[in-house]
Amino acid sequence: MNRKELISQINEKQSFLCVGLDTDSTKLPKHLLSEKNPVLTFNKAMVDATKEYCVSYKINTAFYEAMGVKGWEIMEETLQYIPKTHLVIADAKRGDIGNTSSQYAKAFFETLPFDAVTVAPYMGEDSIRPFLEYENKFTIVLGLTSNKGARDFELQKTGDQFLYEKVLTTVASWGTPDNLMFVVGATQAKELASIRKIIPDNFLLVPGVGSQGGSLEEVSKYGMNKDCGLLVNASRAVIYAASDEQFAQAATQAAKAYNDEMKLHLKK
Amino acid sequence: MNRKELISQINEKQSFLCVGLDTDSTKLPKHLLSEKNPVLTFNKAMVDATKEYCVSYKINTAFYEAMGVKGWEIMEETLQYIPKTHLVIADAKRGDIGNTSSQYAKAFFETLPFDAVTVAPYMGEDSIRPFLEYENKFTIVLGLTSNKGARDFELQKTGDQFLYEKVLTTVASWGTPDNLMFVVGATQAKELASIRKIIPDNFLLVPGVGSQGGSLEEVSKYGMNKDCGLLVNASRAVIYAASDEQFAQAATQAAKAYNDEMKLHLKK
Repeated sequence: MNRKELISQINEKQSFLCVGLDTDSTKLPKHLLSEKNPVLTFNKAMVDATKEYCVSYKINTAFYEAMGVKGWEIMEETLQYIPKTHLVIADAKRGDIGNTSSQYAKAFFETLPFDAVTVAPYMGEDSIRPFLEYENKFTIVLGLTSNKGARDFELQKTGDQFLYEKVLTTVASWGTPDNLMFVVGATQAKELASIRKIIPDNFLLVPGVGSQGGSLEEVSKYGMNKDCGLLVNASRAVIYAASDEQFAQAATQAAKAYNDEMKLHLKK
Repeated sequence: MNRKELISQINEKQSFLCVGLDTDSTKLPKHLLSEKNPVLTFNKAMVDATKEYCVSYKINTAFYEAMGVKGWEIMEETLQYIPKTHLVIADAKRGDIGNTSSQYAKAFFETLPFDAVTVAPYMGEDSIRPFLEYENKFTIVLGLTSNKGARDFELQKTGDQFLYEKVLTTVASWGTPDNLMFVVGATQAKELASIRKIIPDNFLLVPGVGSQGGSLEEVSKYGMNKDCGLLVNASRAVIYAASDEQFAQAATQAAKAYNDEMKLHLKK
């Protein structure tokens, strides 16, 4: 999927919601545990329950790797189930020296048909370039994350800038808004105004709304650009909205609530 | 495996060699391609060929993920084949917010029985802590890497220090030499003297000797401490020493040559 198609999906649905399928096998509704493949059944139910209200899905690879080979299979099968209308993100936070990053790019853009992958910037240009070489794919580089640990390095000063600002400035020059997005946590929403001065056009993947306490209103106010430019991710707040037999309906309601609020923010 | 056992292995073999099983399915000796599982056959041959001369194996997850589900299976089977006397490192460069890093720690320390995993520091303390909670396991945090991209962020100044020095100083306080190592590239060998002032006791995992141009003599001179404190990784220089039917013998010779040189450096 390319940027134009993504923007068109956002306009059509009036939604910039990304649903995070961070499926923890220990948190499934109990009645699903008798299924042959409870995690896959759950993921399919989540896709059915939310696809009308979101434009993207984000699969956090950690939760699948924790299940071993079986988890990698479920990731593949989940990907096959997600409609082509939705941008599918591997939240993998990979990054290595050049020839190794090429292997990661192959893993997520060829072997698995993801549209986008998250990448950690620490190792610099040659660790990120191999991902950017793919057409109609997005590399989503960590900027300012939503966790407490962001203070340790991302918010340290390098010259006049915070490290994360240096990362945004530097990495933005390696790609274009057509192949490059950034992760900016919602718990840092007020920083979005200054971030938009550095990267006015790139899409931002914004985690941390919901369970981590970020506000959708603030993110929209400070982060939106003329193309919307936002993908707001909600994981636990949607997929674990309920854990009883009504879990899918609860997920629908949670996704719809996000979509309803997003419609208002997009109108502004 | 714990630190004491690792040091004992190093002393016994007079080797601090780690062999990197960065097995690229497109670079295998041609005569192996008719095997049922060429990559696994190759990995087993490499372990047999080198285990006498090394104390550790490093599996770079990227090369396996590029093969999809099959690659994850091969990683599991390769792990089962490596003798318990060798420290086995998942070179995965993971890192995410706390509850997600816990899933990565589970993936590599429970689901797969690795002894150690490499972790990227960008997201700070809560992204690293979950790995450190495991007993008799090592978290190996990226410090100064051997690639060109190290200049982009790792070698930027934060206050009086380079970012990588800030990372070493800060992360060292979260663990102990019993559960924490650092990656320091061999192409930056002269930096090892000042790095040893910051972290005198932690083991360093040193890639970049061989194919990337680092010198074993310099690494030993500047990086060794009283317990040796080094694991020098060689990947391509060993496993692709030859691509004909003598590939295993060539790998043995390459590993033995490293071991022979290491014996001299350990005596000094």
